[in-house]
Amino acid sequence: MIKRALISVSDKRGLVEFAKELNRLGVEIISTGGTAKTLKEAGINVIDVSQYTGFPEIMDGRVKTLHPLIHGGILARRDNPEDIERMKQLGIKPIDMVVVNLYPFEATVKKEGVTLEEAIENIDIGGPTLLRAAAKNYKDVVVIVDPDDYSAILEELKKGDVSMDKRIELAKKVFSHTARYDALIAEYFDKISTSEFRQDWTLPLKMIKKLRYGENPHQKAALYALNETPSLIDAEVLQGKEMSFNNYLDTHSAVLLAAEFTEPVCVIVKHNNPCGVAIAENLIDAYKKAFECDPVSAFGGIIALNRTVDKQTASEIINTFYEVIVAPEFDKEALDIFETKKNLRIIRFPCLSGEITPSGFDLKRILGGFIVQQWDKVDDEFWQVKVATKRQPTDSEWKALKFAWKVCKHVKSNAIVYAREDRTVGLGIGQTSRVFSAKIGAMHALSSLKGTVVASDGFFPFRDNIDVLAQNGVTAIIQPGGSVRDQEVIDAADQYNIAMVFTGIRHFRH
Amino acid sequence: MIKRALISVSDKRGLVEFAKELNRLGVEIISTGGTAKTLKEAGINVIDVSQYTGFPEIMDGRVKTLHPLIHGGILARRDNPEDIERMKQLGIKPIDMVVVNLYPFEATVKKEGVTLEEAIENIDIGGPTLLRAAAKNYKDVVVIVDPDDYSAILEELKKGDVSMDKRIELAKKVFSHTARYDALIAEYFDKISTSEFRQDWTLPLKMIKKLRYGENPHQKAALYALNETPSLIDAEVLQGKEMSFNNYLDTHSAVLLAAEFTEPVCVIVKHNNPCGVAIAENLIDAYKKAFECDPVSAFGGIIALNRTVDKQTASEIINTFYEVIVAPEFDKEALDIFETKKNLRIIRFPCLSGEITPSGFDLKRILGGFIVQQWDKVDDEFWQVKVATKRQPTDSEWKALKFAWKVCKHVKSNAIVYAREDRTVGLGIGQTSRVFSAKIGAMHALSSLKGTVVASDGFFPFRDNIDVLAQNGVTAIIQPGGSVRDQEVIDAADQYNIAMVFTGIRHFRH
Repeated sequence: MIKRALISVSDKRGLVEFAKELNRLGVEIISTGGTAKTLKEAGINVIDVSQYTGFPEIMDGRVKTLHPLIHGGILARRDNPEDIERMKQLGIKPIDMVVVNLYPFEATVKKEGVTLEEAIENIDIGGPTLLRAAAKNYKDVVVIVDPDDYSAILEELKKGDVSMDKRIELAKKVFSHTARYDALIAEYFDKISTSEFRQDWTLPLKMIKKLRYGENPHQKAALYALNETPSLIDAEVLQGKEMSFNNYLDTHSAVLLAAEFTEPVCVIVKHNNPCGVAIAENLIDAYKKAFECDPVSAFGGIIALNRTVDKQTASEIINTFYEVIVAPEFDKEALDIFETKKNLRIIRFPCLSGEITPSGFDLKRILGGFIVQQWDKVDDEFWQVKVATKRQPTDSEWKALKFAWKVCKHVKSNAIVYAREDRTVGLGIGQTSRVFSAKIGAMHALSSLKGTVVASDGFFPFRDNIDVLAQNGVTAIIQPGGSVRDQEVIDAADQYNIAMVFTGIRHFRH
Repeated sequence: MIKRALISVSDKRGLVEFAKELNRLGVEIISTGGTAKTLKEAGINVIDVSQYTGFPEIMDGRVKTLHPLIHGGILARRDNPEDIERMKQLGIKPIDMVVVNLYPFEATVKKEGVTLEEAIENIDIGGPTLLRAAAKNYKDVVVIVDPDDYSAILEELKKGDVSMDKRIELAKKVFSHTARYDALIAEYFDKISTSEFRQDWTLPLKMIKKLRYGENPHQKAALYALNETPSLIDAEVLQGKEMSFNNYLDTHSAVLLAAEFTEPVCVIVKHNNPCGVAIAENLIDAYKKAFECDPVSAFGGIIALNRTVDKQTASEIINTFYEVIVAPEFDKEALDIFETKKNLRIIRFPCLSGEITPSGFDLKRILGGFIVQQWDKVDDEFWQVKVATKRQPTDSEWKALKFAWKVCKHVKSNAIVYAREDRTVGLGIGQTSRVFSAKIGAMHALSSLKGTVVASDGFFPFRDNIDVLAQNGVTAIIQPGGSVRDQEVIDAADQYNIAMVFTGIRHFRH
């Protein structure tokens, strides 16, 4: 039975209606500051917390409920005779319901130009304490942190009492809420201080929605947001079926690759690897060239583009079946064309028009936890390309090498990318030996490899790779260097008059 | 200047020495229950909190510091004239330092057979409130949650006062700590209730150590544990260089594949894909067969074995360079042999002797958050194999199909696994088109494919795959089925007298 409730809320949604019902059910209401004012104005009987404790609300509300008459009333175990005796002695009355939500810290720090002082003032101290105390004593106290729960609770109350299952659910909600609240505060402090990897790092995930399924139909799945930008989760789905788990994964990869380029680019991704990448003076040419790299793989793929999609490009794209088209913007005429394909997902992601720097860290799941790393993002000044061979690359080769190197970073290891100045020609993907990637990259090629260049995400352990590339007609190579057999590899390149440059940077991706 | 400190700790490490120094520096100490007792016994001047507030410690310590004389003293802004005035009026004295650590909730719930009541009693209410209040007012209050910080603080105090940088660092530590604390409580409540994907899901990561670097040398990295078992992070590294980021990733994959088998198995993983898998009556034969699948790729790989590694197997293994050997146990003689290769990482992971069910969920990082899914774990009853072709598989083909299907689940999509009863023969990995995986899987084969079977992680979109497999001598196929062109594919298999079974289950892995 709920005889006495403490109400102190920042979010006043549904408050008056809820309190009125409590009043009607004979529940005595204790309240604080703004909440008490709102309730009184609505004609609801309320006892001010200061009157209840005999201690004023002080320091702009910093201290109002932190009082043993309040917390004794919440924390007392009703089935413990000593606790009951203590209550009598000290004049503590039981508080059976706590309705509290917290100062809006998250919303505050999201505001443009928020000051440190404002942020700090929005760290709620009394609120979490009330919530946590009530949740700890959930057997005896009903705790409500979410206004959306008011109606369900009222319904249970009208039938008698709040069930134990519901009380546990409410308590769990409280700790999920306070954990997130403090995780966001910790994150804020992290931003204003310096350190890199935090010791206790509590990641505040928020479920955005359940997904139909995971990588496979028998795996349940959901989409969770971190508190960060840029966020693909915030990207607007303009039309089409709901994004699937695999759509998100592939779109993520496609977007990061497309964002490497300043020229108009088209990236086609399948099974989380690119199958065609091309740049051009305009989007339609970029698309056509990317498609021609591997039309078979492109079918059912994800397309990322870094310019506004126009009518011409859209007309070309809809000739093939794709899962997702992502671009910074779409012309009205382009959208009209896509509308004819109801299932095709069209995603507006404005960040794609510029450079993308992912927030926070990259995390990979292993049994027991995560391996966490900085995103694979290299400052231009950080790496110094060095020509290792006798022959320097020609201007055209340099262009092709730079293009291939950008793509290679986004291909799963071992990666061998055959390319020309403006397009991929053959992609050697994900093989367990590098020379095998060199071979299958060539097999993928639909046009001649004569005069192509190659990017390799890791160094060449032996000269056999160079032999394969030379046989395929490759004239220039970009790779990290750093093998114990670099000299053997350089000699091989010199022998074939191949120009080879070392980046000093590796780009494994798994 | 620190004039007054409140100390209430569960972890009494270094407490007495620290308090003595504070006493020496003229700091007045307020303390509670067990902490006060310890300090008094050590001859340190202490004021009991009940004496300080005029209110007793009640309800087995549930309520002791939740009092405005305490929290007013912590939260008062020293530069705010109104706060100062209030303090005078109400007899609140400033508390300039808070030294608190919390009831050991994490350790409590980890104990075998812990009761709900015990767990709940170990939810600290007063402690987090003191910490959070002090951290909010970090400009005026030094807050210490970690005994390891005592000495650094004392040093600063002896020189004058605690710097603002240090105060911010300490406040950040508090919110990281309370966030983790409540995340663990929420997790506990989650286990005793029912729901699947939580709305607010705050993941309590704990840094175990920094790693040398991430997937690539220019990416900083660290290893973080979740509160779960089985955990590769808890696995004992018996010898060798420190585990790298890529080692963890590959070992994780190798372990999950090895755990699919009850027979003695050897799995060799390279670049996060298997390059050789074999079962046998004993470990050495399993190893030899797995190695022979692809000796070139095996070089520098990760080996997972599901039996105690004996002398013979160890002697064979050290003929090739590997990064990591992981097994449930190692014979003394095997360890002696491995000791000759100082850099080789030897990992004891007892779980590998049985079935492994990963905890929690699989998470994949995307811009803005995570896509979260159940692990790819299928109950035996859940999937029903159906023979789709006229010809049924022979007993030997059935064995090979089951073997290939287990491996195929752990190969990156598109995956085509050529196998015999006891070993992989050719692995088609990670290609953007399925028929290409069929072709390159065959290219990988070092022995004849005549009479092999094939597992495919996804259905065949067209009959061309069957044509390729038949040309290679494949006699039986296992695949999910479910293509709109299943009939075309079945007809093709019938034409070649291939036996083909449908699982109804897909195993994409990206």
